[in-house]
Amino acid sequence: MINAYAAMRAGANLEPFQYAPNQRESMSVEIEISHCGVCHSDLHLIDNDWGVSAYPLVPGHEIVGTITGIGNAVRHLRIGQRVGVGWLAGSCMACEQCLNGNENLCRQAQPTCIGRHGGYASSVIVDARFALALPEELKSEHAAPLLCAGITVFAPLRRQRLNAKARVGIVGVGGLGHLALQFARAMGYSVTAFSTSMNKQEEARGFGADRFVDTSALGALNGEASSCDFVLSTVSADLPWVEYLNLLKPNGHLCLVGASPGELRVPVFPLIEAQKSIGGSAIGSNAELAAMLDFSAEHKISPLVESFSMTDANAAMGVCAKTSSVIAPCW
Amino acid sequence: MINAYAAMRAGANLEPFQYAPNQRESMSVEIEISHCGVCHSDLHLIDNDWGVSAYPLVPGHEIVGTITGIGNAVRHLRIGQRVGVGWLAGSCMACEQCLNGNENLCRQAQPTCIGRHGGYASSVIVDARFALALPEELKSEHAAPLLCAGITVFAPLRRQRLNAKARVGIVGVGGLGHLALQFARAMGYSVTAFSTSMNKQEEARGFGADRFVDTSALGALNGEASSCDFVLSTVSADLPWVEYLNLLKPNGHLCLVGASPGELRVPVFPLIEAQKSIGGSAIGSNAELAAMLDFSAEHKISPLVESFSMTDANAAMGVCAKTSSVIAPCW
Repeated sequence: MINAYAAMRAGANLEPFQYAPNQRESMSVEIEISHCGVCHSDLHLIDNDWGVSAYPLVPGHEIVGTITGIGNAVRHLRIGQRVGVGWLAGSCMACEQCLNGNENLCRQAQPTCIGRHGGYASSVIVDARFALALPEELKSEHAAPLLCAGITVFAPLRRQRLNAKARVGIVGVGGLGHLALQFARAMGYSVTAFSTSMNKQEEARGFGADRFVDTSALGALNGEASSCDFVLSTVSADLPWVEYLNLLKPNGHLCLVGASPGELRVPVFPLIEAQKSIGGSAIGSNAELAAMLDFSAEHKISPLVESFSMTDANAAMGVCAKTSSVIAPCW
Repeated sequence: MINAYAAMRAGANLEPFQYAPNQRESMSVEIEISHCGVCHSDLHLIDNDWGVSAYPLVPGHEIVGTITGIGNAVRHLRIGQRVGVGWLAGSCMACEQCLNGNENLCRQAQPTCIGRHGGYASSVIVDARFALALPEELKSEHAAPLLCAGITVFAPLRRQRLNAKARVGIVGVGGLGHLALQFARAMGYSVTAFSTSMNKQEEARGFGADRFVDTSALGALNGEASSCDFVLSTVSADLPWVEYLNLLKPNGHLCLVGASPGELRVPVFPLIEAQKSIGGSAIGSNAELAAMLDFSAEHKISPLVESFSMTDANAAMGVCAKTSSVIAPCW
């Protein structure tokens, strides 16, 4: 049996829960979990905010652990190896997106803790292709949040193929933003942090921001017009998108990774005239995950973490909800 | 003196007009004009729709002619050479955009017929870097509309770097769309034309559409959901953008080149979930112009043209306004 913590109904506290593992398949690995990050998505799933939750629900999709079982078709991993699993635990591997290395866009992609039990548990079984070998330099408690929060901001930054001295704006200095600032700085860009909280300035500069803009100040965004080649919005609020679009230089791109509930509403003409674009990004592919882990090890990217033991899982969830900081419960 | 046709006030018919040419500069060329395309932008300028017109106004920015004078610093062109000039007659050549080969995004870019006299004239003087040598294979009356309508659709198609067998949607089968269909087909893509007019079907297929969708039919767009890697909208109407966004596969891009007057209004979440993006494109750079001309020569891309003599300029403008087809007045 697998020991886990589960919500037994929508909005409930987590409580101890046991379940029988699925049969291992030839391409699967069993992982004994040492760490699992806590992500806002776990809270959304517990609360059934997206209408896709089934109970008992074992959250957790920022998993780090050691391989204890391995299918007979798996060649690239071995028993005892430390691996990480992120938002996805599998995909069809046969559709156009999978064949192009975009497993994150597969329609049959299998999230790690939707429709199956996740990482707040003693172990988990996943498709071996979604278990990423972890560079030795990365501590397990740092690797965990990188597997979801990290890839969410790394992938769109990397895909842009910006010039070496590009100017990048990061909107929000929370769980996603504090990693985005580190990645952008390590990629060599000139980085501006945009935040509604003036008291985040020092923290933002510590994570790599060259400049800090308090967006709550009157006219602050207008003062930054045409200053960025790329703006990454990590917040899940509805922002005044026209003003954020104005931050872009010609050819600039505004990428949204925070799930703002409302509509994007911008005039067409400025998009055309200055060749601007707006898009979204959803976690990343396995190749991007591997690149992100290597990059993080090389550039010493590490999330702010607060560690909890599994018996304090509910307290860990509370910290996540309150501060947006990233935590990693230990087992 | 240069013989031209000008509108003497907003909305007026064109009438004969003479003006003294500017002094030639060391990097300029003088071009004796043989053909000039008629573009909807000329009509907008005559009518001062954009509030930037000054009168007398000599329209025309799809110019083909022969070099009759050359500045002493010009090394890459020669007297007697046939060249083309598009929307731009110059740019600063010193800003970040110019240095990156994006002259079309230069803030000081000089449009050929705004703030200066354009191509409905016997000759014109432009910065030699904006006079493109024309491949021999291209007829002058075909090259003219390629210099604005052609580049407007070629550049965004080329910049996408789509896979060889990508599925491309072209919205609108008019002056821009009929060229976009030809380019997309010649690039090897599988091409779907979207039009409100069922009677454009045969024409669209003739230009290269593999499939035709009558968008006025109930549910027609929904039936094409997730079918395109790239959609290029060439119409200047406000479309139901959510339905057009739905045409895209994951990772797909919707590019607008038709100046829709209204707002783009789409929910944020589908952009993120399927990594879609929306952007605009504005003509193209000089390098893209040169590539477009070579590509057109190689693949025998040619616009539908109707030729007029200069004395029939007003009739030519009328045809353009009525049918969206592309015409080239002869002198």
